[in-house]
Amino acid sequence: MKTIKAIVKTKNSPKELALQDAPYPTINHNQVVIKIKKTAICGTDIHIYNWDSWAQKTINTPQIIGHEFVGEVVETGMYVTNVRVGQLVSGEGHIVCGKCRHCITGYQHLCRQTVGIGVNKDGVFAEYIAFPASNVWVCDPNIPEEIHSVLDPLGNATHSALSFNVLGEDVLVTGAGPIGLMSVPILKRAGARSIVVSDINPERLALAKALGATATVDVRNKSLPDAMAELDLIKEGFDVGLEMSGSGDAFSGMIDVMANGGKVAVLGILPQDLRVDWNKVIFNSLTLKGIYGRKMFDTWYRATALLQSGLQEEIAKVITHQFPYTQFEEAFELMASGKSGKIILDWS
Amino acid sequence: MKTIKAIVKTKNSPKELALQDAPYPTINHNQVVIKIKKTAICGTDIHIYNWDSWAQKTINTPQIIGHEFVGEVVETGMYVTNVRVGQLVSGEGHIVCGKCRHCITGYQHLCRQTVGIGVNKDGVFAEYIAFPASNVWVCDPNIPEEIHSVLDPLGNATHSALSFNVLGEDVLVTGAGPIGLMSVPILKRAGARSIVVSDINPERLALAKALGATATVDVRNKSLPDAMAELDLIKEGFDVGLEMSGSGDAFSGMIDVMANGGKVAVLGILPQDLRVDWNKVIFNSLTLKGIYGRKMFDTWYRATALLQSGLQEEIAKVITHQFPYTQFEEAFELMASGKSGKIILDWS
Amino acid sequence: MKTIKAIVKTKNSPKELALQDAPYPTINHNQVVIKIKKTAICGTDIHIYNWDSWAQKTINTPQIIGHEFVGEVVETGMYVTNVRVGQLVSGEGHIVCGKCRHCITGYQHLCRQTVGIGVNKDGVFAEYIAFPASNVWVCDPNIPEEIHSVLDPLGNATHSALSFNVLGEDVLVTGAGPIGLMSVPILKRAGARSIVVSDINPERLALAKALGATATVDVRNKSLPDAMAELDLIKEGFDVGLEMSGSGDAFSGMIDVMANGGKVAVLGILPQDLRVDWNKVIFNSLTLKGIYGRKMFDTWYRATALLQSGLQEEIAKVITHQFPYTQFEEAFELMASGKSGKIILDWS
Amino acid sequence: MKTIKAIVKTKNSPKELALQDAPYPTINHNQVVIKIKKTAICGTDIHIYNWDSWAQKTINTPQIIGHEFVGEVVETGMYVTNVRVGQLVSGEGHIVCGKCRHCITGYQHLCRQTVGIGVNKDGVFAEYIAFPASNVWVCDPNIPEEIHSVLDPLGNATHSALSFNVLGEDVLVTGAGPIGLMSVPILKRAGARSIVVSDINPERLALAKALGATATVDVRNKSLPDAMAELDLIKEGFDVGLEMSGSGDAFSGMIDVMANGGKVAVLGILPQDLRVDWNKVIFNSLTLKGIYGRKMFDTWYRATALLQSGLQEEIAKVITHQFPYTQFEEAFELMASGKSGKIILDWS
Repeated sequence: MKTIKAIVKTKNSPKELALQDAPYPTINHNQVVIKIKKTAICGTDIHIYNWDSWAQKTINTPQIIGHEFVGEVVETGMYVTNVRVGQLVSGEGHIVCGKCRHCITGYQHLCRQTVGIGVNKDGVFAEYIAFPASNVWVCDPNIPEEIHSVLDPLGNATHSALSFNVLGEDVLVTGAGPIGLMSVPILKRAGARSIVVSDINPERLALAKALGATATVDVRNKSLPDAMAELDLIKEGFDVGLEMSGSGDAFSGMIDVMANGGKVAVLGILPQDLRVDWNKVIFNSLTLKGIYGRKMFDTWYRATALLQSGLQEEIAKVITHQFPYTQFEEAFELMASGKSGKIILDWS
Repeated sequence: MKTIKAIVKTKNSPKELALQDAPYPTINHNQVVIKIKKTAICGTDIHIYNWDSWAQKTINTPQIIGHEFVGEVVETGMYVTNVRVGQLVSGEGHIVCGKCRHCITGYQHLCRQTVGIGVNKDGVFAEYIAFPASNVWVCDPNIPEEIHSVLDPLGNATHSALSFNVLGEDVLVTGAGPIGLMSVPILKRAGARSIVVSDINPERLALAKALGATATVDVRNKSLPDAMAELDLIKEGFDVGLEMSGSGDAFSGMIDVMANGGKVAVLGILPQDLRVDWNKVIFNSLTLKGIYGRKMFDTWYRATALLQSGLQEEIAKVITHQFPYTQFEEAFELMASGKSGKIILDWS
Repeated sequence: MKTIKAIVKTKNSPKELALQDAPYPTINHNQVVIKIKKTAICGTDIHIYNWDSWAQKTINTPQIIGHEFVGEVVETGMYVTNVRVGQLVSGEGHIVCGKCRHCITGYQHLCRQTVGIGVNKDGVFAEYIAFPASNVWVCDPNIPEEIHSVLDPLGNATHSALSFNVLGEDVLVTGAGPIGLMSVPILKRAGARSIVVSDINPERLALAKALGATATVDVRNKSLPDAMAELDLIKEGFDVGLEMSGSGDAFSGMIDVMANGGKVAVLGILPQDLRVDWNKVIFNSLTLKGIYGRKMFDTWYRATALLQSGLQEEIAKVITHQFPYTQFEEAFELMASGKSGKIILDWS
Repeated sequence: MKTIKAIVKTKNSPKELALQDAPYPTINHNQVVIKIKKTAICGTDIHIYNWDSWAQKTINTPQIIGHEFVGEVVETGMYVTNVRVGQLVSGEGHIVCGKCRHCITGYQHLCRQTVGIGVNKDGVFAEYIAFPASNVWVCDPNIPEEIHSVLDPLGNATHSALSFNVLGEDVLVTGAGPIGLMSVPILKRAGARSIVVSDINPERLALAKALGATATVDVRNKSLPDAMAELDLIKEGFDVGLEMSGSGDAFSGMIDVMANGGKVAVLGILPQDLRVDWNKVIFNSLTLKGIYGRKMFDTWYRATALLQSGLQEEIAKVITHQFPYTQFEEAFELMASGKSGKIILDWS
């Protein structure tokens, strides 16, 4: 039997990733086999690596992990018509039920029966993977492979940033992790008048600035209202907010500085004991929108269209490291340290 | 000097309402004088009556209270063109700044500089009032005066119920106070597939049922999931929610039973120590929208259009009592007891 | 070989429909076999029957015709998960490419590569049909089979009527054919303030009135402006229009009576030599939206939700005749005469 | 009596503009006096200059013309609160009724009772003008006065370009006159993937290219389908179109190359004998939206926000000439020749 190399979470404890042999995938008529070229490490992968409480109740070891990838189709099932052998592809890691209301009306990202590749079943940190053709995204070959390997988090950023109209608006982004960073040039390209990014990490804030932020705020040193006072344009608060930090303080601080009628997309996973000032939400007519995943495939289409318009140069700056897949341990250690942007594993 | 009768909050302590003489109003060229015909008692008036902490920090006694009314224009300033002497009118009780971004783009209800009639300045519980012509709503004379006197809370209900598309959707209304009740027939006329109303007051739930609720739930006796199980249609939760109770339990219970992608309009004033399950908000992609006031004057137009289509019969059921204005003490006592729907004071 | 009965367009000339034997359908793993219970005759079928210029360039005889149906699933391919043997189903007659931008973003009704069942390939006027599982709509068994057999045109009406917000608005429907008629109770249930229907057929206008039209206008006897003058509510014209007549006069007359900012959904196939007053379109800021087909499957979901809320009683009135399929000639003759509403063929 | 200089259309025949004395304006309590600094010549002014059929039935001579301007407030009525003496201002030239549904719901640009400054009453080509305070737009003093003098046509371009979402979309602009040209950088800043501009004037097309057009097409030399074939991205046609030429050929050619579901904003005044292929509009599900004026004042706010984000550099390129107001004859002659972009008259 032909075997492939794969990165497997082997045991129910922290770290415990190993490069192991796995069987070459088999497919049905609606699936394709993809030869993986590059994969990217997601925060989710770090949760599994660290074996935190979420990972403990979610992951069944041993399991191949990973869901951010780009690869080449090497085999297609007989019913597959949307992709051909030889095409460069990425793909949506959420396999949906296909029969609920959301799935049949174009809102598959809201399906309750989602199965996550690399989470609930074997993932893409492997030389080959079997993938449902309906989850494949055919890539524009003019865009570099690295960029395609981060289409999944770029999709999170795009989905969040485009949740509300931002043309001419003043936008606050709390959290300058990879997704927060990616959102900055998207907001810019969507016409935001000003983009203020807050975090407590000076390197990330510097990168936010390089990506087009109008101003950055290290909230350890300066309050948001003080930062706003320096920006002449912002009269009554921010029109749109993107919460991408997962910090309760950041989120409640954002609520305080939104303009009446302001709209907030909430992507960061907030602490359960968070309290917000509901009077501000109600009397200031704020809208809070929880964000999960990406639209299939409207978000993929728009993210690609933005890349084709020049966004790829900015996204390239968010990718800070690239390792051969055999050095995955080093890559995971670095990613877990928080001292990097996106990290890519090369499988070619 | 000509004087008029008015209901005045006279002292900084509970109750302390008195019928007093006040000067007949004078107007500038942009204002009108309205002879008040009927007024309705709002929850806000009860806060002032009870002299709760909000009233203590907001109201400057002595002050004429009240903001829900219908009357007849008896005098118009020389620049006034939108209304004529003799017309039946109601009006928006929020006087806005007229110069901020929101005011000049049709979103006056989001103005930060609002002055509330009957709250920040003298109100409409009086025989006559001076009113800015730009705040006047000209009434359809085919609709009964009682109904027009509650256009303000009907506007709250309309603004909330129309915040999201409800045609074909399953809707949960938490709280069957006057505004929650009014929202039921609006939702029905907007095409909601099912309308479930929860409360802990059996009389109000019975009225909700009479107004068109598909099902009502006394949450002291039955859980929402149990109630949903009895309704065959609701597969994955409610598509839209209207929080109109101000109860933290009701709101967090609503979050639990929303479908993925569900949308909630929040009108009830929630407790500040409320905790919601933010994982549900984020992972289920919920939208929470704070509601305050009404759109000027889109909400007034649509509420009137609904009344012209038959809604007036249902709204009439929410008005349970009517008193001559001289019996205001009895009216306030009854309203404060919670044993009524809307109560009207007659000034004619 | 097992054979089935089917209504076949046999020759390239008018009429020429015959009941013939056809092979029992075979399916692949993604398809189902449906035993047809009832079918409805569409205007498209009449075009084929009459062999007009559109039919001449579109239809390849011999071909089984028909696309409006309800039936029962009797066989499912091994990959099918969205429907089970024994379920009552209808289905979308447009088979889409599944790979274009529209198909992968929830807008399949905009696909350019659509293949029409009963038009470009064999249709449903037969005892059994093979159907792609992804085109199947699972029916609510509490709704009568007749109603389900007209879900396709009901979908046209729903898609048109819900193209624009109509709550509180004044709506003009030009054309009281089956789809125009169906739109009336939908508009009513969506909260339209007034619904005016124009046509030149008194019977159809009477049915429109019975279905809830506020007023009907036989434009041979009365002009639209005169009809509007009788309706006190309509001050500046109609807010929303549904063009469902295919008449150039009706459409240009509608343009004349729209309010500024008015919105028109155009479903009727208009004559190519039509001239409209573009000054009115531009200076009055009108929106004209071409309508084709139905959203897959948002329209099906909402139409069903409306049926579950009571619409089925009104739609039943639009179905005027039912014949055993063996009497198809009589049915087609009647339908072609224009002296009927929807006509159903019974295959059970 | 104090007099001012003004450009007056003196007689009912072509040309016949004269610099004349007019009385210094008087104001009521809701108005302001503006000292004009710069004005721009609009196509409307050229219609009046040429005395075409529209002008003949619209203009009552003698009349001061002009409506595009920037100036300084020198006097304010006693009720005016939104602007102060000394502020730089421009203003909306449509004086609306203030009482119709549209006026009271934030859609004043749809008012049927509009009075046009410089069209139905004396205009701004004068040293001073009385202006309703509610029509004043307070300018950002950091933006050059020239730019503010063209806020009106920039508003037309903004209103058109933002009529539909363009982020990631392929857009066709037919017509590279001043408004078509201005729309190009707006579309770019709103995230359009590609912007194709067609015209028959090589100089204007060159300017379109300089302003950011992806491609330009001189339709005398190349067909739109040929131009599209050269752009690899556009698979099925344009997603959004802006008709800004007023040419029937351009508009019907645009209809031919729109993608299914495409949306077209129509600003150019089309010929009345235009025929479009309605089958394409209907079967391809196109939306056509007539555009007139600008939203008060959402369009002004967003246009200004874009200018504050850098758009001013691009708009400056559309302004090709500037004359002292005394040389108005030369300016009008040049503008009428079509050999210029925007032309400004200086009154300071």
